[in-house]
Amino acid sequence: MNTPRPIAILGGTGPEGFGLALRWAQAGETVIIGSRDAKRAQDAAQKIKQHVGPSAKISGSENIAACSAADLLVLTIPFEGHAALLKQLKPAIRPGSIVIDATVPLAASVGGRATRTLGVWQGSAAQQTAELAPKDVSVVAAFQNLGAELLNADGSVDCDVIVCSDDPNAGQVVRSLATKILGVRAIDGGKLENARILEQITALLIGLNIRHKGHSGIRITGLPQAAYDVM
Amino acid sequence: MNTPRPIAILGGTGPEGFGLALRWAQAGETVIIGSRDAKRAQDAAQKIKQHVGPSAKISGSENIAACSAADLLVLTIPFEGHAALLKQLKPAIRPGSIVIDATVPLAASVGGRATRTLGVWQGSAAQQTAELAPKDVSVVAAFQNLGAELLNADGSVDCDVIVCSDDPNAGQVVRSLATKILGVRAIDGGKLENARILEQITALLIGLNIRHKGHSGIRITGLPQAAYDVM
Repeated sequence: MNTPRPIAILGGTGPEGFGLALRWAQAGETVIIGSRDAKRAQDAAQKIKQHVGPSAKISGSENIAACSAADLLVLTIPFEGHAALLKQLKPAIRPGSIVIDATVPLAASVGGRATRTLGVWQGSAAQQTAELAPKDVSVVAAFQNLGAELLNADGSVDCDVIVCSDDPNAGQVVRSLATKILGVRAIDGGKLENARILEQITALLIGLNIRHKGHSGIRITGLPQAAYDVM
Repeated sequence: MNTPRPIAILGGTGPEGFGLALRWAQAGETVIIGSRDAKRAQDAAQKIKQHVGPSAKISGSENIAACSAADLLVLTIPFEGHAALLKQLKPAIRPGSIVIDATVPLAASVGGRATRTLGVWQGSAAQQTAELAPKDVSVVAAFQNLGAELLNADGSVDCDVIVCSDDPNAGQVVRSLATKILGVRAIDGGKLENARILEQITALLIGLNIRHKGHSGIRITGLPQAAYDVM
């Protein structure tokens, strides 16, 4: 069963957003790639259509237009553009939207290392989003730990996606979306405040990738079957 | 091949220390359980001997005595006793020792939640150890993410142990120790500063355990075979 609403991926021309768009288009979801530059967004959408086939329900548009056309919004932007994009999008975000934040506040955002994170006053990028977004939207932290290389490669993704939100219904919607990525299991990770740990895990995985020359991910072991949402 | 030196587990009568002692005794290592109370340490050692069999090379003694008798030291104490124990042990730590820190600065240490961590000025409990320990020892962060229930249960532990240290040789020794726990793969996680992420992962896993009623752990996927140290 497909999600009956389009997914707008803001900053969707970067490798992480592109990979998510690709996976969801493959799963039959309706995806809008958003970018500062409408032409780049359309080119990315076209590339995915060529890869997935003509039935792919994918399009590209400028970020604000993408945001206005969807109520499932995914933020896959570098942290340095995170707050600015949110402020710009704010008037276009529909009431009741779900804002899915995959952003990681890597120190690389300010010229530091991608293996370190910045301290964010609110606790995490996702909590910053909760502060900056309109009050009538639900913020969900997810997908930080899925490397772009894995998403953009063919085949199954050997990773779990931990989903954190203060809105259990929104969390459920996002876990369902996560399971549409081949191989992924989704796990309810509790409140949005736990996003700070998910974001830091990404820095650890980047460090492992550099050190060991791989494309690492995480799996959570030891939970009862019911804890894992699967396709 | 067994490690040719005894392993002293300070705070080894708690569930985490006891579990590590049990696993290493099962693997034929020489283990000294340390405790504030020598009698409790001896009782714990006796319990392990009964479980493993008379060939188990395990004993118990007061923390300082345990520390003086070994140069592989494992800290498995609640964070509230961490700095105080280190200061107490300091004169007894042999030059060239390896101090393995499994401590997690859970907010439970100050009456908060076990699903949250405290901010430690140095960045992590392990880095606090590096500051408090004598200069001529090597500090290694490891084992934070192995739940005590898993260690104390029979059978294979479905977890990876990420090992962080500024001393690659010490890290190697500890990875080798980790692989002696049935099922565990050890991974070089880089510098000691990354311990802060390992420590926070524990808080996440505790949250998952509470939410989903399990005994969770993590596996790292996607690295080349050579990145995983196995028995």
